[in-house]
Amino acid sequence: MKKLSDLGERQAIRLISKILSEGDVAVGIGDDCAALDFGDEYLLVSTDMITEKTHIPDVMTPWQIGWFIIAINLSDIAAKGGQPLGLVLSLGLPKNTTESFLKELMKGANDCATKYGTTIIGGDTKENSQITICGTAFGTVRKDEFMSRKGAKPGDIVAVTGTLGKAGAGYFALQHNLKGKILKDILEPQPKIKEGRTLAKQKTVTSCMDISDGLSSSLYQLQELNKVGFEIKKDCIPLSPSLFDLAEKHTEIDVHEYALHFGGEYELLLTIPPDAFEQAREKLTAIGTVTKEQDIALIDGASKTILKNKGYEHFKDSDFFNL
Amino acid sequence: MKKLSDLGERQAIRLISKILSEGDVAVGIGDDCAALDFGDEYLLVSTDMITEKTHIPDVMTPWQIGWFIIAINLSDIAAKGGQPLGLVLSLGLPKNTTESFLKELMKGANDCATKYGTTIIGGDTKENSQITICGTAFGTVRKDEFMSRKGAKPGDIVAVTGTLGKAGAGYFALQHNLKGKILKDILEPQPKIKEGRTLAKQKTVTSCMDISDGLSSSLYQLQELNKVGFEIKKDCIPLSPSLFDLAEKHTEIDVHEYALHFGGEYELLLTIPPDAFEQAREKLTAIGTVTKEQDIALIDGASKTILKNKGYEHFKDSDFFNL
Repeated sequence: MKKLSDLGERQAIRLISKILSEGDVAVGIGDDCAALDFGDEYLLVSTDMITEKTHIPDVMTPWQIGWFIIAINLSDIAAKGGQPLGLVLSLGLPKNTTESFLKELMKGANDCATKYGTTIIGGDTKENSQITICGTAFGTVRKDEFMSRKGAKPGDIVAVTGTLGKAGAGYFALQHNLKGKILKDILEPQPKIKEGRTLAKQKTVTSCMDISDGLSSSLYQLQELNKVGFEIKKDCIPLSPSLFDLAEKHTEIDVHEYALHFGGEYELLLTIPPDAFEQAREKLTAIGTVTKEQDIALIDGASKTILKNKGYEHFKDSDFFNL
Repeated sequence: MKKLSDLGERQAIRLISKILSEGDVAVGIGDDCAALDFGDEYLLVSTDMITEKTHIPDVMTPWQIGWFIIAINLSDIAAKGGQPLGLVLSLGLPKNTTESFLKELMKGANDCATKYGTTIIGGDTKENSQITICGTAFGTVRKDEFMSRKGAKPGDIVAVTGTLGKAGAGYFALQHNLKGKILKDILEPQPKIKEGRTLAKQKTVTSCMDISDGLSSSLYQLQELNKVGFEIKKDCIPLSPSLFDLAEKHTEIDVHEYALHFGGEYELLLTIPPDAFEQAREKLTAIGTVTKEQDIALIDGASKTILKNKGYEHFKDSDFFNL
């Protein structure tokens, strides 16, 4: 009898999609958000669950836990170009949870929602043997501004917002009990709501997703959906300052390895035609191009290798964030 | 330091409400659903989490678990008079969960959604040490048809849909390893979507909620919100046939006790002016009246006692369903 640990999360999701009836859903399972027809707009919905053992490292404060669950849900709304409308939060908490833990958690959640112009409008509290928190975010986007995961065309530029490697650096910091901003980067992610809206309004992005599963894994997901390939230029990947700082002290760190394969990176990965990229250049870094040939190649100077698919998958691996 | 087990679920919710910023929410925390302004309509959102230890008895099949999480979320939409629009489902599952368990669970969820004219449009799967499932339902209702928890007026009739005692009978059955329809009643609840819509369209219901916390607990919640009291006639409470059957064989069962104090009863409790009640009489049973005096009295023939508040609260009690 096959177990979920043999399947991995993405195969489990495929199995689930096959069972579900199709409704009036414009975009369903397999994208960052589901999108429902709502006149000229889509109603976007995204849900994410985090759990003590697999997502909440010991150093995370209750305030950060609250911030985190809101931020990762808003990141999915951002990836579709959406404007957040509100969130609901279900808390599964052990009986011996303190009142101050609950207060701090809700403050963190509220602070994150407020920062991104939205509110927590409802929820549920239940007893659970370990902290398990489920957030659901909804938002809206005009239909002609919606950024799907589907639509990448050969010749498009592959681009990312911000810098990568914050998640990898943070994971290293956690494992080595390092403190400071390097942890803040991963424990308090900043969803790219503003960036998503700006890109959406240009109506030129051909496909978009957040990099919560890591860059290589995200590229493989776009490849499968779009039946295209990618050529990624290793030297063009924008590396986060915190990763550089870390690598200076810890020379064993391969910075590109860290930037490519760690989940928990809440930037946006997108494809965009070359002329449109020029207009958005200030907010983006080009890291490669979409190819007709369905390989994902990593270009390193004159050498060209196939990029490994090493993203974090639940069930297959229960480490925090990655590897 | 106060623990959640000292607070109970409703006090925890009060604490949470104080922390959250107010947004453009028409109805927020404290009702069955949150309601967001959406033109002539409200967007209704409800979220519920269930957990192996506290909500999922051993006899429940994976198909029933799937059905259950969808049904209880739709029940909240029903209580506001809403038309379901879709649901998302977050699954926290142990690594050793089998593929067939996942398939059956999703079939149950899909079957329930389909039966009530809606679909599951997205979700999340994560590893968890025990089965933890979070569903979020959304729906719409015209603003003038929305049935709030607030609005009960002295003189209104207190009424319920269907019959009560299914949850209590089911709980007894679980504890005594009984089988058959008596279990089906509680493990496969039927959300009152149609009844909710019919009542909403009449625009005469002054307050409404589902009875998922049990009748006495629900009355106490309406009392607190509306600053009114209730006189409930014990003999008027419509008892479920399954509870009667059970009480015939098990004479120790006090049927009214079971009908009053068990959560997991997915009928609707509502208040409605007497003349409007006459029009809806076929679908409802009158069980009492709203009073100005803020007591909840139970009338039993000539005797009048104060009704006890014995609903199930999480954190304070982790038994399945109730007591």
